[in-house]
Amino acid sequence: MPEPIDFYFDFSSPYGYLAATQVDDLAARYDRDVRWHPILLGVIFKVTGQMPLVDQPLRGDYHRRDIVRSAGFLGVPYKWPPKFPFPALAASRIFYGLADRDRPTAQRFARAVYDRAFGEGLDVMSDESLQAVLQQIGLPDETLRWARDERAKEWLRQATDAAIAKGVFGSPFIVIDREAFWGVDRLPQIARWLEIGGW
Amino acid sequence: MPEPIDFYFDFSSPYGYLAATQVDDLAARYDRDVRWHPILLGVIFKVTGQMPLVDQPLRGDYHRRDIVRSAGFLGVPYKWPPKFPFPALAASRIFYGLADRDRPTAQRFARAVYDRAFGEGLDVMSDESLQAVLQQIGLPDETLRWARDERAKEWLRQATDAAIAKGVFGSPFIVIDREAFWGVDRLPQIARWLEIGGW
Repeated sequence: MPEPIDFYFDFSSPYGYLAATQVDDLAARYDRDVRWHPILLGVIFKVTGQMPLVDQPLRGDYHRRDIVRSAGFLGVPYKWPPKFPFPALAASRIFYGLADRDRPTAQRFARAVYDRAFGEGLDVMSDESLQAVLQQIGLPDETLRWARDERAKEWLRQATDAAIAKGVFGSPFIVIDREAFWGVDRLPQIARWLEIGGW
Repeated sequence: MPEPIDFYFDFSSPYGYLAATQVDDLAARYDRDVRWHPILLGVIFKVTGQMPLVDQPLRGDYHRRDIVRSAGFLGVPYKWPPKFPFPALAASRIFYGLADRDRPTAQRFARAVYDRAFGEGLDVMSDESLQAVLQQIGLPDETLRWARDERAKEWLRQATDAAIAKGVFGSPFIVIDREAFWGVDRLPQIARWLEIGGW
């Protein structure tokens, strides 16, 4: 089986959510696994000098519309979370806490967080919200401890630094072998790349 | 026949070139004309605080690669012009000089400029280069006077201001009725929008 695809995203990224609804199925059609990597886009934006899309003059309003339209185009549910953009530290740390032992479970957790945040438009920052996610996928409440665990904080920092070192500057960001694709709108190119191995 | 589609672009925008190779045929499939509007992205970037894509940290290298890959994906030729990015004032003014009398001819000129710049990788700034374009599409050499004509300068300024007023912040930028689409990667959404009139 060929190498897994690397999928970088920030839990507070709507376009990341849209990609997350597609990437596993897309990869599976070409016998690929996907390695999910939550990262902190805020840290990366300090390096690139970017602002969050929706805060940019002229561009903000466009993206608010484009995100909803793109969800409709892909046929997936979309609702704005109560606060947006939001810091996704706790969910990201829990992910790496889980991934240390069991990556498939961590990825199930990530999908559930994204679905709650942007599919249902609910909070994913508070302990109560994250506990609801954990219960939904059958994980014990004590899993929440990772949100404040020093090792998990360090794993998240390392993951974000490693992403920057690989040239990741946005969310979603997908790397196939050594080829980088930024944005949910690159899914058609990704599908063809997986099919024919480049052009 | 429904209203024409508005197509905003900067002559020095590679993604604008890619869209230009597709937009007329795409619109024609849904009985639409396309109204081409060259604009000065540099003026717009002063409003939005953006930098040219290829000058941005981390993002620049990605976009240089993505542009070439996207051309391959669309099956169109791509070569970097000798200088990039380049100011496209002269070509833009000639466009508006021509468009004042004869919009189809102006749009033929625009397509030829883009094909020379990014299809063949040749200069489109010098008088000699622009004369070569004019000859190629059968226009008299004296058409070049528009490059320094005060009215044409004013038309270009007005077109750029009007674009900003409509929320245009990038190239290519396509408006169907009142719906705005930014980027060549929105062509699949544009096709479906033209087909079913929104969702």
